[in-house]
Amino acid sequence: MKKINLKDNHHFALYGSTALAEPGFKRFSDNELNMIKVVSPRVYELAKESSGIQAHFATNSKWIELSIKFNKIFSMTNSSPIGQMGVDLYVFDNKSNQYVFCGVSRPEINQTSYDTLLVEFETNEMRKFILNLPLFVAVEELTLSFEDNSAVLPLQENKKKIMMYGTSILHGACASRPGMSYSNILSRRLNVEILNYGFNGNAHNEKEIAQILGKRNVDLFIIDSEANAYDDSILERLELFIKTFKQYQPHTKIIITNRIPYFKDHLEKERQLKREKYDAYFNYLKDTIKDLIFVDVYQELCDDLEITGDGLHPNDYGMVKMANIFEKIIKTHL
Amino acid sequence: MKKINLKDNHHFALYGSTALAEPGFKRFSDNELNMIKVVSPRVYELAKESSGIQAHFATNSKWIELSIKFNKIFSMTNSSPIGQMGVDLYVFDNKSNQYVFCGVSRPEINQTSYDTLLVEFETNEMRKFILNLPLFVAVEELTLSFEDNSAVLPLQENKKKIMMYGTSILHGACASRPGMSYSNILSRRLNVEILNYGFNGNAHNEKEIAQILGKRNVDLFIIDSEANAYDDSILERLELFIKTFKQYQPHTKIIITNRIPYFKDHLEKERQLKREKYDAYFNYLKDTIKDLIFVDVYQELCDDLEITGDGLHPNDYGMVKMANIFEKIIKTHL
Repeated sequence: MKKINLKDNHHFALYGSTALAEPGFKRFSDNELNMIKVVSPRVYELAKESSGIQAHFATNSKWIELSIKFNKIFSMTNSSPIGQMGVDLYVFDNKSNQYVFCGVSRPEINQTSYDTLLVEFETNEMRKFILNLPLFVAVEELTLSFEDNSAVLPLQENKKKIMMYGTSILHGACASRPGMSYSNILSRRLNVEILNYGFNGNAHNEKEIAQILGKRNVDLFIIDSEANAYDDSILERLELFIKTFKQYQPHTKIIITNRIPYFKDHLEKERQLKREKYDAYFNYLKDTIKDLIFVDVYQELCDDLEITGDGLHPNDYGMVKMANIFEKIIKTHL
Repeated sequence: MKKINLKDNHHFALYGSTALAEPGFKRFSDNELNMIKVVSPRVYELAKESSGIQAHFATNSKWIELSIKFNKIFSMTNSSPIGQMGVDLYVFDNKSNQYVFCGVSRPEINQTSYDTLLVEFETNEMRKFILNLPLFVAVEELTLSFEDNSAVLPLQENKKKIMMYGTSILHGACASRPGMSYSNILSRRLNVEILNYGFNGNAHNEKEIAQILGKRNVDLFIIDSEANAYDDSILERLELFIKTFKQYQPHTKIIITNRIPYFKDHLEKERQLKREKYDAYFNYLKDTIKDLIFVDVYQELCDDLEITGDGLHPNDYGMVKMANIFEKIIKTHL
C-alpha cells in the first residue's frame, strides 16, 4: 500500500486556495488570518475550514483509500454528516467527457477522524480524479492510499481562476456532499479553479477583507454576500468593499448578486420593501461602477420555494439551480 | 393559546396511512403489524415511522407552533436532523395556485422532543396548510398550537389514492426535509393521497406484505423495490408479489420500476449484466401481466450521477427528477 499525504505535490495538485503551501487546508494564509482576526474573529476560524478545496490527480490504482483527521464533530441541524465532514470523489468519464461522482465517505456523527475505501475499479487503467474536501471542518491531516505499484500523478492544469465571496450559502450549508456546493459544481462544469470565500453566518463586506482579496489575480470576482447583511449594512459597505478591491485590481470584472429567495419573503411585507431597496442599490452599483455585472438570482428563483432545505440554504436542487444561473453568466464574462 | 392534538379530527384531516384511527402515526394497523412481525421484524419497526403522513387543515391564526415527541435521536450519516426528525409546512398560495414551503423545524441531534414556532403571518386571513410528518422517527405525540380565538378546520378532500411500495429511497433517505421525499412532492403536485410503504433497507417483496397491501382499495399501485433485492430475490419474488396483490385487487393498475442509478453501476461490469437481467425480467412481467406498466427510471436518470447524496439515495435534486418522471406516468394512468 502506497500512503501519500495530500500535500505531496509530486502526486497531487491542489486547487481552491492560495494558502496551500502552508500547513493545513486553509483559505487564507497565516499572515492574512492575523489581519482578519482583528476585524472578524469568526471568519478567522471559518477560513480554516476546507470548503471548495480540491485535489486533482491521476492514478492507475484499482482502489483509493482515504484517511482524514479534522477539528469538529457533527453538529449542524440542516446538513448531514456527509455534508459537513465528508469528502467525495469524481472520476473523468471519457464517454460523457466530464467528471462523474464515484466515491464518498460516510462519517459517523461522533467522529473527528476516519478511514474509508473511497472507490474500487476492476482494471488498472489510468484515470483522472477530483477529490472535494469537507465543507465544514478544518482538515488537519489527509492521506490517500493506493496499490503499491501504482502511479499517482498531479494534474497541473492551467485553469482560469474565479474568486467568490459569500455566506453559508457559498460555504455549502445544506449540500448533501461537498461536490454539490454550487462553487464545486461550477468548478467542474466550467473547468475553472474557484477560490471559495464562503463563511457561515458572515461575509459582512469588511473593507479589510477586500484589501486581502484584492491581492489575488483572478479572472472574475463574484460577490454573493447579501444574505448576512443585517441592518442594511450592505448599503453602507458593499460599494466601499468593491472600490477597495478595485484599487488593487482595476481590470477584474466583478459580478454582484442578490441572495436566493427565503420562504419568508412571501409572508412579510417588510422583506419585500427591503428587496426593492437592496435591488435598487445593486442596480445603482451596476450603473455607476465600471465592469460590474448584477445577477438577479432572487428574481430567477423566486417562483420555486423548493430550492431550500431549511428556508434559507439551498438544498441540492437549489444548488443545481444556482449553478445553472451562474454557469450562463460566467460563460459570458470569463 | 389553542393547543390541539393532531389526532383531533374536528381540526385536522390526516392522510398517508390507513392506520391513523389507532394510536401513533403508523403505516400499518396493529393487526397488520402482528402479521408482519413474523415475516419481517425490521418492517414491523420501520412501519411505525411516519414517512408520507400528512395533516391537512385551514386556519386564520397568525402563527402555528408545533410540539412533538418521538422515539429516536439523530443517527443517519446521509441525512440531516431536519431530514430525519423534522417536519415541514406548506401553505396554499393563491397566486401560483399551489402549496408552497413556509415552515420547518430544526431539531438538534440529541433531541427526542421539541417545540418550535413553525410559521408566522402578518394577517389573520384563512389559509390552507399541509404539514409533513418526520420521515425517520415514530411520532408518539404531536400537537399544534394556534391563537386563542382562531378557527382550525380539517381539510377533508376526496382525493385519488396511490399506494407506493419500496426501499429507503421511497422512505426518504437523503431528502433535506420531509416535503422533499418524492412521494410527498408527488402528493402535492398531483393533489393525491399517497400511502408511503417505503422501508429503509427492506421491501423484499414478501407475499405476506402483498396480502396486506391487497386489502387497500387504491387507484394506482407503484412498486419501487429493486434497490434492496439482494441475491436476485426480486427475480424469485416480484411476480408472486404482484399476482398475490392482484388476487385481491384484479383491476388496479400497477406500475413497476427499476431502481435509480448508483455511482458504482458505471464501474462494475457485473452490475451492468445484472441491470440487463433485471430489466429483461421487468419487461417480461410487463408483457405477461395485464395492466402492468414498467417505468425505466434507471434509463431516464443514468446520464446524471449528481442525483444521489451518498451514491445510493437521491438528494433533493434526485428527488425532484424522480418526481418529474413519476408525475408524467401517473398523470397518464390515474
